[in-house]
Amino acid sequence: MKIAVDGMGGDNAPKEIIEGVYKALDEFPDVAVQLYGHQEKMQPYLKDHERLEIIHCEEVIEGTDDPVRAVRRKKDSSMVKMAQAVKEQRADACVSAGNTGALMAAGLFVVGRIEGVDRPALAPTLPTMDGQGFVMLDMGANAEARPEHLVQYAVMGSIYAEKVRGIQNPRVGLLNIGTEEKKGNDLTKAAFPLLKEAPLNFIGNVESRDLLNGAADVVVTDGFTGNMVLKTIEGTAMNVFSMIKKVFMSSAKTKVAAFLVKDEIGGLKGMLDYSEYGGAGLFGLKAPVIKAHGSSNSTALFNAIRQTRTMVEFDVTGTIYSTLKKESQDE
Amino acid sequence: MKIAVDGMGGDNAPKEIIEGVYKALDEFPDVAVQLYGHQEKMQPYLKDHERLEIIHCEEVIEGTDDPVRAVRRKKDSSMVKMAQAVKEQRADACVSAGNTGALMAAGLFVVGRIEGVDRPALAPTLPTMDGQGFVMLDMGANAEARPEHLVQYAVMGSIYAEKVRGIQNPRVGLLNIGTEEKKGNDLTKAAFPLLKEAPLNFIGNVESRDLLNGAADVVVTDGFTGNMVLKTIEGTAMNVFSMIKKVFMSSAKTKVAAFLVKDEIGGLKGMLDYSEYGGAGLFGLKAPVIKAHGSSNSTALFNAIRQTRTMVEFDVTGTIYSTLKKESQDE
Repeated sequence: MKIAVDGMGGDNAPKEIIEGVYKALDEFPDVAVQLYGHQEKMQPYLKDHERLEIIHCEEVIEGTDDPVRAVRRKKDSSMVKMAQAVKEQRADACVSAGNTGALMAAGLFVVGRIEGVDRPALAPTLPTMDGQGFVMLDMGANAEARPEHLVQYAVMGSIYAEKVRGIQNPRVGLLNIGTEEKKGNDLTKAAFPLLKEAPLNFIGNVESRDLLNGAADVVVTDGFTGNMVLKTIEGTAMNVFSMIKKVFMSSAKTKVAAFLVKDEIGGLKGMLDYSEYGGAGLFGLKAPVIKAHGSSNSTALFNAIRQTRTMVEFDVTGTIYSTLKKESQDE
Repeated sequence: MKIAVDGMGGDNAPKEIIEGVYKALDEFPDVAVQLYGHQEKMQPYLKDHERLEIIHCEEVIEGTDDPVRAVRRKKDSSMVKMAQAVKEQRADACVSAGNTGALMAAGLFVVGRIEGVDRPALAPTLPTMDGQGFVMLDMGANAEARPEHLVQYAVMGSIYAEKVRGIQNPRVGLLNIGTEEKKGNDLTKAAFPLLKEAPLNFIGNVESRDLLNGAADVVVTDGFTGNMVLKTIEGTAMNVFSMIKKVFMSSAKTKVAAFLVKDEIGGLKGMLDYSEYGGAGLFGLKAPVIKAHGSSNSTALFNAIRQTRTMVEFDVTGTIYSTLKKESQDE
């Protein structure tokens, strides 16, 4: 299979991106990579590889660029050309660690939606305490959602959890501010009965405080709430860790304690490390489009490619298409 | 001043509630307490006090009761009778650690709204890393909100921050998924220009990951999002602490480390301890109605009474009324 990679996207591009690509080429003999980026800037990190093709692009979409405008105007950027390759079926899927909004715009306007999907959804896999993780969507592709969009998110998330994460009959939860059926805002109240009727393993409402305990395998919510919760988890965990670090540095006695638990605490942060879980899929597009974290190192980029490969291998896109088509025919 | 207290509400009632009341009576010579509850059940913890009046109530609203129905039917419950005393101006304010929904219903139906306030808002003071804290509203009194409600929340929160928390010209932030003006969902996009025009120190959008760093003194959001974020902070902090505890208990070496930092880590949890910050005000009612945390101990209840006393002393309710009246006349 051919995977297109944006060599210029992310804080550590192109070096860490290219190193991640070589790791993936070493690990997966069935993968060929098309690397899009500025030839000269990438040159210092490149070495010949029979399954690597370099496509020169003059432009780069920056993190500060207006997403939609950048995709419309920067036709010779690595991100747009990568998406174009997918659209024209010269590549099976694509990966970028660049501007999230721009990648969503490129996905929507260049790659295009699957028929039957009203809105694509950004779907990262988030860590849980037991290391199992869960898929949450939408994390911000669309701030507003209608109840039927949440059902589509649930279908897409379930297919991904089953095909890519190997979870049989994944438990789908509706993110809400209480577990009772009648709780919530207009959106969650209207979505609840729809999810109950859908051919899903719907387990009802789940609360945000139980997410890290693995309350569900797939959690659906509108993009505003999803993005808000993700940032709250990140901010709170970061703050607690920095408080603890301050405590450890406060005296000679606590520094001894810090020395004794250094490895174990480091392991903890690893458990909550998003890079271990690959990137966030942009679900509902005609081919897999994966957003790797902006601060991706080579390991994170490698994991994003591994995830992309699995999505192609198990035809997640085709399954989403046929499932939603079947559902609309059954109605 | 007279403060009505629900002696039967909360996980640790009536014992810890009554102990908290005696602490407040000792500390504040200007406070008299009306204690509502079941005489027999409270008896073991009661001692005579000249500024304490006991009002017997046959019924109790349980945590599992349906809020609105309980307030309508349990006319002889401690919570309803406490609210009735405030309505009839036999008390200046009231405090309960009981069923949150029922207290909101009692506030709305018994105490009543201030003219000019469309929706009351639940407004706790949340901790920050620097110990300063901030007021956030609405935390769930109403799942849905319109843009003009967020402006009313901002006005009420600012008055509280200034009068009760002593913050001059408090910074008001709109909780959002990005800092740029055009970010967010329909609600935040519509609320932003209204907040900008209002006579407030509006500093723009704030992101949930910056809340614990003290991004603003007053943070406004709809009740669904507010409740979601609060539960996410609680859940994440609790999970990180329990992970760390597990690490400390994992070997003889880490147990030594745990022993060395025991006091300091305990202090950390105290920093994030809600009970230090009193209760959550239900703003927009004709008199202060304070919800103490359900798991309140005597210290938390004491702090909630202290907070209530300050709200009465600085006439927060009257100031909200006159400010909103002035604003509607200016329009």
